[in-house]
Amino acid sequence: MSRVLYDLCGIDERLRFSPYCWRVRYALAHKGLEVETRAWRFTEKEALDFADHDRVPVLVDGQEVVTDSYAILRYLDRAYPSAPLLGDDLGEARARFFKHYAERSLAPAIMRTIVMDLFNAIHPDDRAYFRESREKRFGRTLEEFHSPVKGLTQLDTALAPLRGRLEEADFLDGDAPAGGDYLVFGFFMWARCVSSADLVSNADPTYAWLERMLDLHGGLGRQAMRITDIEGAYR
Amino acid sequence: MSRVLYDLCGIDERLRFSPYCWRVRYALAHKGLEVETRAWRFTEKEALDFADHDRVPVLVDGQEVVTDSYAILRYLDRAYPSAPLLGDDLGEARARFFKHYAERSLAPAIMRTIVMDLFNAIHPDDRAYFRESREKRFGRTLEEFHSPVKGLTQLDTALAPLRGRLEEADFLDGDAPAGGDYLVFGFFMWARCVSSADLVSNADPTYAWLERMLDLHGGLGRQAMRITDIEGAYR
Repeated sequence: MSRVLYDLCGIDERLRFSPYCWRVRYALAHKGLEVETRAWRFTEKEALDFADHDRVPVLVDGQEVVTDSYAILRYLDRAYPSAPLLGDDLGEARARFFKHYAERSLAPAIMRTIVMDLFNAIHPDDRAYFRESREKRFGRTLEEFHSPVKGLTQLDTALAPLRGRLEEADFLDGDAPAGGDYLVFGFFMWARCVSSADLVSNADPTYAWLERMLDLHGGLGRQAMRITDIEGAYR
Repeated sequence: MSRVLYDLCGIDERLRFSPYCWRVRYALAHKGLEVETRAWRFTEKEALDFADHDRVPVLVDGQEVVTDSYAILRYLDRAYPSAPLLGDDLGEARARFFKHYAERSLAPAIMRTIVMDLFNAIHPDDRAYFRESREKRFGRTLEEFHSPVKGLTQLDTALAPLRGRLEEADFLDGDAPAGGDYLVFGFFMWARCVSSADLVSNADPTYAWLERMLDLHGGLGRQAMRITDIEGAYR
């Protein structure tokens, strides 16, 4: 098989938690495409030199090398047109909004809730890099930024439009999931893999959607290793 | 002409501020369709009996009577397929998210900022109805709910995904505006018509988009009467 996805791993090689990589894992499964994932850590920059990039996901599909999760979804629609992820015209334009909603509304709220769990899940060799880059971004220490109560309050507000949509449809993209769902869901996989925090109450329509997303594609998300599966790792 | 839109008015018949009606005004202009608007007030329920509905917008298009702004946009795409507003399949499914984002993320933040200006702009005969129905919804008096500082803080957070999208494209729907833009923009027209509050700083990419939206379709939004155009009305 000549399809390889470079995929962020943590303290265990099998612990894969990047929200951007999860978008791609779901997108590949949506297209029915097999992939070999290759564990990668934040500080292994030189391993991605061939792609002229310093972050995952990186997809190598035969002769094609594609970086950036959104660009990979677009590439997959071009190369494998059946079962569209982003679609054309208005569909594709609107998918961009889901990307920004996930990255700018949900991700900061989730990050605030789980950052110390995330730090704990990262490979020890990557922790200094993670701490330095994130503390610079947040303008404070990880410990100061970490606030589950603030994060969950922020998340509750940010979920309002998702909730509205999921009250009327099983998936963001309608009766069946597609790129819009994957662009958003990746961030919930991120939290699920590194933390046992309950982000969404089971009375929330978002909860039932998360359960459906975990079951998709043969339980792709539900079967993924979580930090709680590693003895002694979660504290 | 046999196309009529029942359109909410305020203290002056020409003051039209319903966010849902503005969606439809823009959608009709997008399709190049002329319309006669008919001023309607909150308490004139019986005037809409023919439509079996109690709120505007109501569109009468020849023999067709359509209520609810989103349903009207969908009707327009069916009846006048060129220049799609919502589009098909993934495009249409994703347009629903813009509706919920506008109604559940932006509208509450804007409402909190402008509610007393809105109250002031409403026809005196409608004010008791407005106060009673909204105070019931908010669980407190209009005066207690009114908080521009809280509303603007909430709006600043809610605008994050819009900002992300408008940093990369002129319109939410891409190079040209369509239904996604109108579903969201209606709420900015609502605020603009009843208030002089600055909702968005001119350094925000949202600001330039608002200016573009005001200029569309021959300056449809920019030409609309504002409360500040009525002598002695804005206080």
